[in-house]
Amino acid sequence: MTTYDYDLFVIGGGSGGVRAGRVAASLGKNVGIAEEFRFGGTCVIRGCVPKKLFVYASQYPEHFEDAEGFGWTVGERSFDWKALIAAKDKEIARLEGLYRKGLENAGAELLDTRAELVDAHTVRLVKTGATVTAERIVIATGGSANPHAALPGHELCITSNEAFHLEELPRSILIAGGGYIAVEFANIFHGLGVETTLIYRGKEILSRFDEDMRRGLHKAMEEKGIRIILTDLIEEVAKAPEGGLTARTLNGATIHADQVMLALGRDPNTNGLGLEAAGVAVNERGAIIVDDYSRTSVPHIFALGDVTDRVQLTPVAIHEAMCFIETEYRNNPTKPDHDLIATAVFSQPEIGTVGLSEEEAIKRFAEIEVYRAEFRPMKATLSGRTEKTIMKLIVNAADRKVVGAHILGHEAGEMAQLLGITLKAGCTKDDFDRTMAVHPTAAEELVTMYKPSYRVKNGERVTG
Amino acid sequence: MTTYDYDLFVIGGGSGGVRAGRVAASLGKNVGIAEEFRFGGTCVIRGCVPKKLFVYASQYPEHFEDAEGFGWTVGERSFDWKALIAAKDKEIARLEGLYRKGLENAGAELLDTRAELVDAHTVRLVKTGATVTAERIVIATGGSANPHAALPGHELCITSNEAFHLEELPRSILIAGGGYIAVEFANIFHGLGVETTLIYRGKEILSRFDEDMRRGLHKAMEEKGIRIILTDLIEEVAKAPEGGLTARTLNGATIHADQVMLALGRDPNTNGLGLEAAGVAVNERGAIIVDDYSRTSVPHIFALGDVTDRVQLTPVAIHEAMCFIETEYRNNPTKPDHDLIATAVFSQPEIGTVGLSEEEAIKRFAEIEVYRAEFRPMKATLSGRTEKTIMKLIVNAADRKVVGAHILGHEAGEMAQLLGITLKAGCTKDDFDRTMAVHPTAAEELVTMYKPSYRVKNGERVTG
Repeated sequence: MTTYDYDLFVIGGGSGGVRAGRVAASLGKNVGIAEEFRFGGTCVIRGCVPKKLFVYASQYPEHFEDAEGFGWTVGERSFDWKALIAAKDKEIARLEGLYRKGLENAGAELLDTRAELVDAHTVRLVKTGATVTAERIVIATGGSANPHAALPGHELCITSNEAFHLEELPRSILIAGGGYIAVEFANIFHGLGVETTLIYRGKEILSRFDEDMRRGLHKAMEEKGIRIILTDLIEEVAKAPEGGLTARTLNGATIHADQVMLALGRDPNTNGLGLEAAGVAVNERGAIIVDDYSRTSVPHIFALGDVTDRVQLTPVAIHEAMCFIETEYRNNPTKPDHDLIATAVFSQPEIGTVGLSEEEAIKRFAEIEVYRAEFRPMKATLSGRTEKTIMKLIVNAADRKVVGAHILGHEAGEMAQLLGITLKAGCTKDDFDRTMAVHPTAAEELVTMYKPSYRVKNGERVTG
Repeated sequence: MTTYDYDLFVIGGGSGGVRAGRVAASLGKNVGIAEEFRFGGTCVIRGCVPKKLFVYASQYPEHFEDAEGFGWTVGERSFDWKALIAAKDKEIARLEGLYRKGLENAGAELLDTRAELVDAHTVRLVKTGATVTAERIVIATGGSANPHAALPGHELCITSNEAFHLEELPRSILIAGGGYIAVEFANIFHGLGVETTLIYRGKEILSRFDEDMRRGLHKAMEEKGIRIILTDLIEEVAKAPEGGLTARTLNGATIHADQVMLALGRDPNTNGLGLEAAGVAVNERGAIIVDDYSRTSVPHIFALGDVTDRVQLTPVAIHEAMCFIETEYRNNPTKPDHDLIATAVFSQPEIGTVGLSEEEAIKRFAEIEVYRAEFRPMKATLSGRTEKTIMKLIVNAADRKVVGAHILGHEAGEMAQLLGITLKAGCTKDDFDRTMAVHPTAAEELVTMYKPSYRVKNGERVTG
């Protein structure tokens, strides 16, 4: 029998890799885990966590304004970008420490180095040049912001990576992209007082989301003062003689801004990883191809999380890691379940969503019922803020199951989490109707929409 | 056949009465509805709605403080109580107008007068002295704060009614009671800068809530600076020579405060209503006795909402009204369903709860699993606020059903609303486990507690 240095070697210390390594080690496996940058991965170091901290920071100006409607007079306020960065960095360092400690306590060996495959059982630790062998290998190297290298002047632009570490808060920013990262950062920068423009080649932001959410958020962002340019894209970025940058767009516009941020998708981190040498197949986007059990083309090599380009979300990577553990170390073959994943966009207002959009549901079912409410949140009655909460339930008329739930409004992410349980459990609209309202909340609207706003039968909208 | 002036006469223009009257009128019934004070009832005029507006107002000082951890410097702020009252009154007047308009549009006749029963089919309109007859009568006169008339000096005290209209914000307040009204107002006044003391005769605030919620909120309130005195009660209130009031307690304490607020329960509004003349029976608390269909001892007289002292909540009164409509006007006998009602306490932090407390579940089931998480909310990592969110799921081990869910933390009310659907639908812990997390949210904790914190088997706690 061949012996290996490790039972399991994990390449990449992000959400998926750390979970797989930590749990395997806690089960008594001899685990090595290599990370070239910082343990915690995209989520902790330059994704979900710092992003949400920025979101909180950017919400305060609205709190200050809203307070006046409730009898408060608030004196002059000022914002110190460097103080926010420092506070955020301190918290991220604390979390990174927890991730490291979790691995150490479980008995895993942490290797602060890039690691590359040499063959199907051998990994080279780039820092020392040493090679180690492992019975099983997990690749969880994640993804990174597409630098859009074909764009002239792309080297003058930033991505979300740099946005977390800018020396100074820009006075103005142009953000390219229509996905959740572009949208979240547009709201963050605007909230912090930056003149913000979003440019996106599509017809509406947030493709694949429910149309009401897309339009509703677009409107809300414009009302706040964020400029949104659609069906256009940046063709060139150059330094402006007066300082800052100038972007020239396909439609002939010239936009000047202190910073240009590209949020044009993320690529799997597979370059130079030695996948070919190991025999691990990738697809045309460079993502590692895996089967239903996260197994690559090499039976004892697995891949988890963003590097597989399935669903790029932290909880999904963690779930895939737990399924890997069940399958390989607990004799309980378990496929990751990618169906009905609730998600949130931490825009302002937030979007929380689970299941099918109205547009998808129409394609899938002969008849759907749409329950839709649009209302002013209670707080806005006194703050005077012009904002609308939109809530939508999509029901398959045939079996009454709620197949989609969509919310635009405060705490939509928290609501989406719990609506996720109801959709996963197959709850029907009758289950919603049977539930007593909690008053006064926003969510009570979701259990008091007794009559459909409209139906869509074979693709045609029927009112009543 | 006898003819009546009205098909339906409703006494009381609160949540239950207005709903019954409006829907009956929209079905073509000839409806009269009498209200002696203001349409909208406790909820709109001096309950849920103004209370929540006050809660919002009282949260701003924490926002101002928290902002500093995120890089903000906030100048001096001041609060104008009269401005809040005026803004609140304007909103309440708007809502009252909507209630009136809803009834008018449906074709109901609004009568701004107290109404009393003369006999089982006859109502006297007190303002004019006129009598009218009706085929069916709905009594929905609600309840009111117990004035605690046996307490010497009670006439010097206020209840929640007056708290909504105080001429000035007191510098200090003593609130008697341990129920949700006492607790909510203690947080409101404290948030607005009032030195606040709560006194309650019981061993812990919020009896019947889950013990973790009770203790957790108590601790959070004390950390904010609210003084809580337990197992004691006010025996006498007198004017203090130096101004304000002095309360003497059973345990011999003397407490001085600008205002003393009594939140010692609410009584059904049945005094002088002519119930005896009509043959409508009441219980020893003066609440109207009803059967499963909200029918009183007189078959064509119904009672809804707080006057029946079943569950004193707005959505319950509305639900009872809708069941009355189904039963009497749609030929579809429907009993109100009072099982598994989710509720919120709009304290700071909030409590959201549905189903059984741990203590109740232990009595009811041979074995329960308790899933419990206590964590610092993400926002607090930068704000530096010492606060803990507590989340608890109680599961019946026999069938894996989640039989109780309890949250202490921000937006707990919104979460309780949606957890209510899952309990009502009979979701199991496995349904929760199958649900993908939404990151970063607080609610994700509810779907990632995979192992019980402990079990309770035949009343005894078993760890692991």
